[in-house]
Amino acid sequence: MRKALAGHGASRGSALGRARVRQPHALEVAEEHVAAEAVESELIRLHTAIDAVRVEMRNLRTKLHGALVHEVGEFLDMHALLLDDPELLQGLDELVRTGRYGADYALRLQRDRLAAVFEGMDDAYFRSRIEDIDHVIGRVHAALHKREADLQGVAGEVLVADNVAPSELAQLQSQGVMAVVTAGGSALSHTAILARSLHLPLVIGAADALQLVNDGDVLVVDGTSGELVVEPDAKDLRAHRARMRDEKRERKQLHRLRREPSRTLDQHDIKLFANAESREDVSEAHALGAAGVGLYRTEFLFLQRDTPPDEDEQFRAYRDVVLGMTGRMVTIRTLDIGADKVDRAGIAPSGEANPALGVRGLRLSLAKPGLFETQLRAILRASGYGPLRILLPMVTSCEEIRLARTYLERVAAELRAEGFEIADHVALGAMIEVPAAAIALSGFIGAVDFISVGTNDLTQYVLAADRGNDALADLYTPLHPAMVKLLHGVIRTAKSRGKPVAVCGEMAGDALFTPLLLALGLEEFSLHPGTLLEVRRAVRASELSSLRASAPSLLRARDRAAIERWLAKATTH
Amino acid sequence: MRKALAGHGASRGSALGRARVRQPHALEVAEEHVAAEAVESELIRLHTAIDAVRVEMRNLRTKLHGALVHEVGEFLDMHALLLDDPELLQGLDELVRTGRYGADYALRLQRDRLAAVFEGMDDAYFRSRIEDIDHVIGRVHAALHKREADLQGVAGEVLVADNVAPSELAQLQSQGVMAVVTAGGSALSHTAILARSLHLPLVIGAADALQLVNDGDVLVVDGTSGELVVEPDAKDLRAHRARMRDEKRERKQLHRLRREPSRTLDQHDIKLFANAESREDVSEAHALGAAGVGLYRTEFLFLQRDTPPDEDEQFRAYRDVVLGMTGRMVTIRTLDIGADKVDRAGIAPSGEANPALGVRGLRLSLAKPGLFETQLRAILRASGYGPLRILLPMVTSCEEIRLARTYLERVAAELRAEGFEIADHVALGAMIEVPAAAIALSGFIGAVDFISVGTNDLTQYVLAADRGNDALADLYTPLHPAMVKLLHGVIRTAKSRGKPVAVCGEMAGDALFTPLLLALGLEEFSLHPGTLLEVRRAVRASELSSLRASAPSLLRARDRAAIERWLAKATTH
Repeated sequence: MRKALAGHGASRGSALGRARVRQPHALEVAEEHVAAEAVESELIRLHTAIDAVRVEMRNLRTKLHGALVHEVGEFLDMHALLLDDPELLQGLDELVRTGRYGADYALRLQRDRLAAVFEGMDDAYFRSRIEDIDHVIGRVHAALHKREADLQGVAGEVLVADNVAPSELAQLQSQGVMAVVTAGGSALSHTAILARSLHLPLVIGAADALQLVNDGDVLVVDGTSGELVVEPDAKDLRAHRARMRDEKRERKQLHRLRREPSRTLDQHDIKLFANAESREDVSEAHALGAAGVGLYRTEFLFLQRDTPPDEDEQFRAYRDVVLGMTGRMVTIRTLDIGADKVDRAGIAPSGEANPALGVRGLRLSLAKPGLFETQLRAILRASGYGPLRILLPMVTSCEEIRLARTYLERVAAELRAEGFEIADHVALGAMIEVPAAAIALSGFIGAVDFISVGTNDLTQYVLAADRGNDALADLYTPLHPAMVKLLHGVIRTAKSRGKPVAVCGEMAGDALFTPLLLALGLEEFSLHPGTLLEVRRAVRASELSSLRASAPSLLRARDRAAIERWLAKATTH
Repeated sequence: MRKALAGHGASRGSALGRARVRQPHALEVAEEHVAAEAVESELIRLHTAIDAVRVEMRNLRTKLHGALVHEVGEFLDMHALLLDDPELLQGLDELVRTGRYGADYALRLQRDRLAAVFEGMDDAYFRSRIEDIDHVIGRVHAALHKREADLQGVAGEVLVADNVAPSELAQLQSQGVMAVVTAGGSALSHTAILARSLHLPLVIGAADALQLVNDGDVLVVDGTSGELVVEPDAKDLRAHRARMRDEKRERKQLHRLRREPSRTLDQHDIKLFANAESREDVSEAHALGAAGVGLYRTEFLFLQRDTPPDEDEQFRAYRDVVLGMTGRMVTIRTLDIGADKVDRAGIAPSGEANPALGVRGLRLSLAKPGLFETQLRAILRASGYGPLRILLPMVTSCEEIRLARTYLERVAAELRAEGFEIADHVALGAMIEVPAAAIALSGFIGAVDFISVGTNDLTQYVLAADRGNDALADLYTPLHPAMVKLLHGVIRTAKSRGKPVAVCGEMAGDALFTPLLLALGLEEFSLHPGTLLEVRRAVRASELSSLRASAPSLLRARDRAAIERWLAKATTH
């Protein structure tokens, strides 16, 4: 029977498919026991399954590419961590060894035992913990039976769920899920931001969906208007096909923007740079008319291998980016591993209590001068092939920049003495992602040639909220008054000192945030090529003078709600 | 033979004792075996130690600067390589697994086995290889015993070491170590701050100490002047006893200050509150003339037990603090577990990737309304017995305060309806320790009655440097220009809105920082009773007007060195 439901559109796009309704996980296993002499083999069976899941998750991790590595990888890592949780593992072993339970039943008992701790607490954090536990236990259970983990979605389906964690989105998309419908959520949540960057249609706030939609129902979803129809009739199908045509036309129009300037209605040119880490990103950036590469991540050269790349291998990679951008500026960020990005070669420290607050980014480079100098040599050698500049991650103090510059100058002198052709001057910039650097910027901006604001990490530190922690998904937002103030101060300080300033976090790549960043005075964005045209469209629809005129009211906002109201008003203008 | 050495005094106090020189080598182990079922745990123990050494060496590498990077860095890199040598690691595993040797003995055997390869070769290179092996194996051996009681110091001894990590100090003192002498270090380092707050004499920068002092030498240490004498003669002993008498006299003079006001030379009264968590702290605070309790930590009621305390138990504890302070203000902080403080009852989440950026403090209380309401009820009931106010930890946004106030008002109404006698108005305050709260303070200060700045956590988040991570001990400092700016802004905002503002982190309790906090406009300090009189003395020696007049030059400082220069100048005035 046809039913129409209303939610809110949070990520554009239409979809038609069968519903997959995600009800609270239940691992249905009958009680089973093993004989004393079978305990050891049951333990082996269990641990083989656990190991298989480890491998499976590692593989999934390697399949991520582009922006997904950064945005989703860490959530997978969280599940991987859970899999290594001694409490989980010891509990399982004990149930098999002492309780003589079969592996399946032990999983079920252990799941219930862990979930019981969090149950009855009506709170997003604890619910998400149970979801994590279910997810991991479910995978192990599936592995025990030599099949792929129970998919949360299947190609062609529409997932209907209470809520979806940021960590799940990319996996759902890679499984071919067409759209996601959630009962809760916010259009400015981390999940919604990711859905938009993945171009995965998302409807939020469809409060009744879990009650009214049944598994297997055919569903039409409109991620723009937020409307859903269960068991659509001919008229609904016609409307859906019309929307699909409209969307196709819209994509074509968007595509035409690749040859247009990123210019506001009142004729201000905004520079859109691309974030890149692969050759594909670079050629896409070039094709879309990006102003250059605003953030070339060098980590991918170092991950997934046992020894770090040598100078020549790095040089070739950097040179190819420079050549690929045919004279447009390329910004190469020095190695930023540590925290969630841990390499196999053992460069990043392991076992830190709080890796996000640990030895990462520039801290690690300064701790490993040999590695740092090799990278600087490779980058400088590439500077002979076209315009290039160097960006230092996780800068905390003036002293670090001075030290890094000393290395840079020494390496440059060495290379010249060795007869290499390198640029006369290579600009050195700092990522502004540590609050200290943002707050004390006026004191050290003289020491750098340009800056780039990493809003993802900056938000995480300013709010003291791990962005990979789903329990804090509501707290983690760049729409906190402190972030708005800080961004405004950073942009103003840089511009008053004549230093280029870009924003390169998720904010920069989400057209919903474009008016806000323009209002704060930003003129350079760096974003994944996949969302460049949408942001260009947003820029072209903006009137810079009126946005800047409304900045004071934005800066007076006392809470997130006030900032969201400002944003809603700015977007409808 | 008598030798005199000169270092710098970093924590006052004299000591006389035998030297314990910390050398990384020395491996004397008797043969030991492990049972078959203990093999796995022995392997884990071994690999935990190896991982710890990896981190340790990486940290050591971070601390190198200038020419040392090249001269010493290479050796460290070589040692790090050796530590990853599969031959070494596999050999060790095999010895434990197959040979059933204990980890210590396996280390010794493997050392001898590797050394044998190079022995008899009369070549400096191969000899130095053996030294490298000894060094690395020695470090692993030390790491194996790091958690066991007696390694680094023994009661009555003076530890002489290259450097001492902040994390080691408290342990050393609890072991009865009399004083610490380090070859490196800074008087404003985290280690030195802790030493002063522990009243543990510390001499830093005694460059030759490691060469000139032998294990077991008798040593006289003066933590004020920084002088050391090895094998003191009669004259030295006489001088030492004279110093001890002086120190005793000084302590008496300090003791007399307990009846004196905390008033600057130019007659400004500064309020010194006490941080407290035990009954002893409270009565000491009272005896020392503290203005009240500025931070009563309620965590101790919740830790070390399987179930949280009920309302009555909490009420009695809070009431006793109020009664103990006989009418002076008592500030009770609501539960701040999570991060490093994890309870046995399972209230705090476990398994977070970055607990310091996780669900802790107020976030946890708001996630567990039942627990929060119980605590609020207990606190409000205590308000019937004397002046009391409530302090919320880890406040990030305005919304959280509003929510907390809603709970507080509901609970107050309930209690009144139940017939309890509670105060008409109980002030609600916020800890300012999340950068967002400090930055956006002007927007939400209207929602609170007072604030207290937790500089320990604030520094950690502003610098994105885990304060428990020894590798970042040099980076972690409240003397970063960003911290100075932020503190200044917070104090100014609060005062301009007529809201009391205190600082309750380590900074507040270290007399070396007193001039800086006074210059920034602070009038309320909250600190451990153990350092209250020293800070009072510093206050009484300060001229507030001249300190405040010099604030602009402090705020212009671009780096830590400039702030340290300001501080040195302010202290000598």
